[in-house]
Amino acid sequence: MKVGIVNVTGYAGLELARLLQAHPEVELTQVTGRSAAGQRLSDIFPNLTGPDLPITAEFEEAVDVAFSALPHAASAAAVIKLLESGVKAIDISADFRLKDPAVYEQWYQVAHPAPELLHEAVYGLPEIYRDQIKQARLIANPGCYPTSAILALAPVADIIEPDIIVDSKSGVSGAGRTLSFTTHYSEVNESCQAYSIGGHRHLPEIVQEVASARERALGRDEAVSMLFVPHLVPMTRGILSDCYARLAVPLSAAQLRDRYREFYRDAPFVRIVDRPPQTKHTWGSNYCVICPCVDERTNRLIVLSCLDNLVKGAAGQAVQNMNLMMGFAETTGIEATPFYP
Amino acid sequence: MKVGIVNVTGYAGLELARLLQAHPEVELTQVTGRSAAGQRLSDIFPNLTGPDLPITAEFEEAVDVAFSALPHAASAAAVIKLLESGVKAIDISADFRLKDPAVYEQWYQVAHPAPELLHEAVYGLPEIYRDQIKQARLIANPGCYPTSAILALAPVADIIEPDIIVDSKSGVSGAGRTLSFTTHYSEVNESCQAYSIGGHRHLPEIVQEVASARERALGRDEAVSMLFVPHLVPMTRGILSDCYARLAVPLSAAQLRDRYREFYRDAPFVRIVDRPPQTKHTWGSNYCVICPCVDERTNRLIVLSCLDNLVKGAAGQAVQNMNLMMGFAETTGIEATPFYP
Amino acid sequence: MKVGIVNVTGYAGLELARLLQAHPEVELTQVTGRSAAGQRLSDIFPNLTGPDLPITAEFEEAVDVAFSALPHAASAAAVIKLLESGVKAIDISADFRLKDPAVYEQWYQVAHPAPELLHEAVYGLPEIYRDQIKQARLIANPGCYPTSAILALAPVADIIEPDIIVDSKSGVSGAGRTLSFTTHYSEVNESCQAYSIGGHRHLPEIVQEVASARERALGRDEAVSMLFVPHLVPMTRGILSDCYARLAVPLSAAQLRDRYREFYRDAPFVRIVDRPPQTKHTWGSNYCVICPCVDERTNRLIVLSCLDNLVKGAAGQAVQNMNLMMGFAETTGIEATPFYP
Amino acid sequence: MKVGIVNVTGYAGLELARLLQAHPEVELTQVTGRSAAGQRLSDIFPNLTGPDLPITAEFEEAVDVAFSALPHAASAAAVIKLLESGVKAIDISADFRLKDPAVYEQWYQVAHPAPELLHEAVYGLPEIYRDQIKQARLIANPGCYPTSAILALAPVADIIEPDIIVDSKSGVSGAGRTLSFTTHYSEVNESCQAYSIGGHRHLPEIVQEVASARERALGRDEAVSMLFVPHLVPMTRGILSDCYARLAVPLSAAQLRDRYREFYRDAPFVRIVDRPPQTKHTWGSNYCVICPCVDERTNRLIVLSCLDNLVKGAAGQAVQNMNLMMGFAETTGIEATPFYP
Repeated sequence: MKVGIVNVTGYAGLELARLLQAHPEVELTQVTGRSAAGQRLSDIFPNLTGPDLPITAEFEEAVDVAFSALPHAASAAAVIKLLESGVKAIDISADFRLKDPAVYEQWYQVAHPAPELLHEAVYGLPEIYRDQIKQARLIANPGCYPTSAILALAPVADIIEPDIIVDSKSGVSGAGRTLSFTTHYSEVNESCQAYSIGGHRHLPEIVQEVASARERALGRDEAVSMLFVPHLVPMTRGILSDCYARLAVPLSAAQLRDRYREFYRDAPFVRIVDRPPQTKHTWGSNYCVICPCVDERTNRLIVLSCLDNLVKGAAGQAVQNMNLMMGFAETTGIEATPFYP
Repeated sequence: MKVGIVNVTGYAGLELARLLQAHPEVELTQVTGRSAAGQRLSDIFPNLTGPDLPITAEFEEAVDVAFSALPHAASAAAVIKLLESGVKAIDISADFRLKDPAVYEQWYQVAHPAPELLHEAVYGLPEIYRDQIKQARLIANPGCYPTSAILALAPVADIIEPDIIVDSKSGVSGAGRTLSFTTHYSEVNESCQAYSIGGHRHLPEIVQEVASARERALGRDEAVSMLFVPHLVPMTRGILSDCYARLAVPLSAAQLRDRYREFYRDAPFVRIVDRPPQTKHTWGSNYCVICPCVDERTNRLIVLSCLDNLVKGAAGQAVQNMNLMMGFAETTGIEATPFYP
Repeated sequence: MKVGIVNVTGYAGLELARLLQAHPEVELTQVTGRSAAGQRLSDIFPNLTGPDLPITAEFEEAVDVAFSALPHAASAAAVIKLLESGVKAIDISADFRLKDPAVYEQWYQVAHPAPELLHEAVYGLPEIYRDQIKQARLIANPGCYPTSAILALAPVADIIEPDIIVDSKSGVSGAGRTLSFTTHYSEVNESCQAYSIGGHRHLPEIVQEVASARERALGRDEAVSMLFVPHLVPMTRGILSDCYARLAVPLSAAQLRDRYREFYRDAPFVRIVDRPPQTKHTWGSNYCVICPCVDERTNRLIVLSCLDNLVKGAAGQAVQNMNLMMGFAETTGIEATPFYP
Repeated sequence: MKVGIVNVTGYAGLELARLLQAHPEVELTQVTGRSAAGQRLSDIFPNLTGPDLPITAEFEEAVDVAFSALPHAASAAAVIKLLESGVKAIDISADFRLKDPAVYEQWYQVAHPAPELLHEAVYGLPEIYRDQIKQARLIANPGCYPTSAILALAPVADIIEPDIIVDSKSGVSGAGRTLSFTTHYSEVNESCQAYSIGGHRHLPEIVQEVASARERALGRDEAVSMLFVPHLVPMTRGILSDCYARLAVPLSAAQLRDRYREFYRDAPFVRIVDRPPQTKHTWGSNYCVICPCVDERTNRLIVLSCLDNLVKGAAGQAVQNMNLMMGFAETTGIEATPFYP
């Protein structure tokens, strides 16, 4: 089984390369780049230890599955070509995540490049859409913040009031490898800040999936009010999302945890814990660690959700999707234990 | 004017020593410690450049004002002695912050050591209680989280629904100089986590002061529901509090900012800004930087509030209180510009 | 094949548990602790995802190989017991690294607990002693600094003047899990310092092995003068050692690199590079990355050597030793690619 | 007294603005920028609290002293204009540091723009050239690494063998505000590396001044062999230089420290200590903390030298130079105590 990465030169591409080079069922045979075409993998990523592939402008041989780590819009264009040539595609960009092309256009300020594929594309959150993923030829790999928030909220989507606050804290690698002041070391180190308070592009994705989960459970479509505030924290990897909502039905702490454990009974990468997790409990792994709590004073639900934004929040989840699509065991190649300390 | 520090050996004590040694109107003449008695300031704090005072077990000469940086309960005992000997006292501990001794006992698990002083003690937030501070002989210096949250919420206490979430992010120095796993470098670095989700001791302090502000403005006493979730972020100094509430009256973003600017018109250390601030915009200074926002989608208020937990959140505010008590200009000795980067 | 860890509760023990739980040829069946006896692995290390073993005071069943992560002196006592019961032992402590018990006593301030085993013990640096390790029943696993310095210097031990400076920079996890001011977050963060300038315990270990390498190549025993200055750098993992010496024979940069590549031709975990490596190029992996350079202005050799102090500098190397002792492929279970970023 | 900053938009410019706005004897009235012209100081540096000056392309009014924080070559051009208009100039760039224009051209790859001024320019290290600085109209403000190394070596320049290794560790702000991969947060965090091992531009500056110090003491000009290896450490501010050399005369540790204390008897910003200092002992201050040691095993001198690269290593030293030039007390406006933690 041959796989390729379109635009390997960012952090998601790098993390895909790391995981795929070590994957026992596939062979990474092709990697493309734009400005880096002509170089080798080791020229830009000296940490990699697998075959030192040339970075090409386009795939030069056939692959069975391809991952696109291009920016939005450019990614859709690449995905269309892949599908046309019979290659299964896992899109790391946002292009196929939002089901409504109008919402896409509102948030990404560009007309959707392939609205006809939106119905077919499967939102690649295996814990929710495992069966559909197995049948898919196009996966929209979820965003990092949405993965943490949706996994935190899905088990209770139908028993909370649809008025939610998600306050997320992210490491800086989530902002990618592109240079900017907000990722310049001296500006970020020893500092913490909120950003995109006017509305972050991951908001509609979280709303869509929490509303879907609610609709599936309740049988009716309802608006979900959501406030999402992302923050930059001085660390490289890790997301912690605090999700706040009111329980519509009374539930003890134990009942709440049981509900989550039952919901994720068959999910190998979700761990339900009863003490506030550290993002570091997921570092370098594909795990999402969730701690659901009830605040008795205010009767509010607080769900804490941690993951590694480059693994479960990007490349690891993409490999998990590939495993399901290709009929491999779901955990193949992404079993790594979190690193601590 | 002679001043002394009771228990100089923690980070609040150290920061007080740094500020008082450079203060043009007072002379730091006495510092006490418990385990460190017999050593000199430079033995434990080589960064200090002022007179190298001996650390004694008790004050050995008279002072005009004293700061107590003892832990709670022990601090009250020290403060009683100071007041009895005619010394004005600024208590960095929590002992005199909560007006209701029953609430104190509930949160600190000890009977209040001096309930008779609670009425006299002034909550040392100059932006709210400047006039009372000028007359006081006993100041309860506010907690670091409460300073950030109360300054963020006071200007709108009467126009929000009394159902508030405060999601705070703090640097590790807020946990003090006492060794523990939660402050051990390798456990904290490259990680982020919530803690005390069952209820942090700063919660009743925030509730008390937001309810007071509301009562002063509305003329009636009402319960305030508040959820406070503190987080540890891998940096030494800095607090960012995100305060979430619903506006009870419609207000544009500009009106909101004007309201804050008017409220803090005479406050030299509060800055109202219109872009999300970084905690680093306050590093090493006594400023609190506040960014009030309205989320139009959900009609929620978001107030972002940053400060340096060791300065405005502890020692700097204590000096600000001393300045007011002693009739000095409010900003004397604490004018430092924030450091960046 | 059953393996056990004596004193799992430090960072080396934790890292061993992480690696051994995922190792395909062995089963981790026993872990001991001292103060933690009675708890489970997950109580102290929530990141681990393998079987949640009870932490016992002593091994309660037989194992084939055991790792001791006890402090020095205590470790030797445990190792003696293991060997007596027919268990092969890999000692992470310093107890069997120094061949001369007088040198041990000088540096560790205690008489050597088992001098009769020193001759048998093999210094567990596979790149140098692979054949002896395969036959050994007792391995002295090298220190983290020594691994970086010896691998940097061994290929040129016979062509440099025996007057060497090693200036090493280490992440904080090298100081272990024991609480102290030098590992307290706020003391270490945003700071860098030298320590143990009067003489660090890893110095005699480096001297012994560089002198041995020189003796093997030159056929004569000579004193090696060495200055070793370790530094603490604000990061969790990673060691960078800069080794300075004069070349006794002229060598071009290319000849130098060829010499290193030839020397480590069969070493799967040593990479020779021609640009200064980052410690991060080894993060989470068992690789040692070495960049040998010649400074033409001063005709000095500079060898830069990076590794992850908890993997190649401790637990990973211990597993590499186990693999050799047990006849597994040398890289089994420790093939992980370095993480970046 | 009016002062201006040419090219305020980098970190040295920012730090100058912070210090000069608070300086009691001067008024910062003009700041220029290139791409930022037309903006205000607060637009790019929201931490500043002084008058919100417009950033102009050129000075629009007369000043008495100007600081140039332009890159090399561009800075010399600006300095020439300043001098011609009768303004005293303190050049933060490297343009006037090297006395020999050929050496300048060799290292900066450009012909010196104003060789006729090299003789007049004074190397602005007050601890060495205080008297000349008082008379100067053009100051070449030293580099950050050179300040740490020269202050460490000057007191012993005549009693060491002229064969020196300087291994320096620097925070990332030393690389400036210009975006690059080597200052991109995720690339730098949790990593440490050497750079410019082929020769860093600060090397000839250190050599020149150590050779000068040696010549002044010995009365003869001799070549000094020096190896300088700079490293990037994951922190924002701080430099630690380890200087290694052999003592040509035997000296006890106490004699050595006395020699340093005597040498810096009148230097308000140099502190001689006897335990290895942390860079954090200088954070935010104009101090240089020096710990001279003798390694008895190898009879080598090790001098550890710490400073804040943006203060004593750049802007603070520039203000110290201005104070001397203008007849103010040397410490005016730069008395700040180091921040800890």
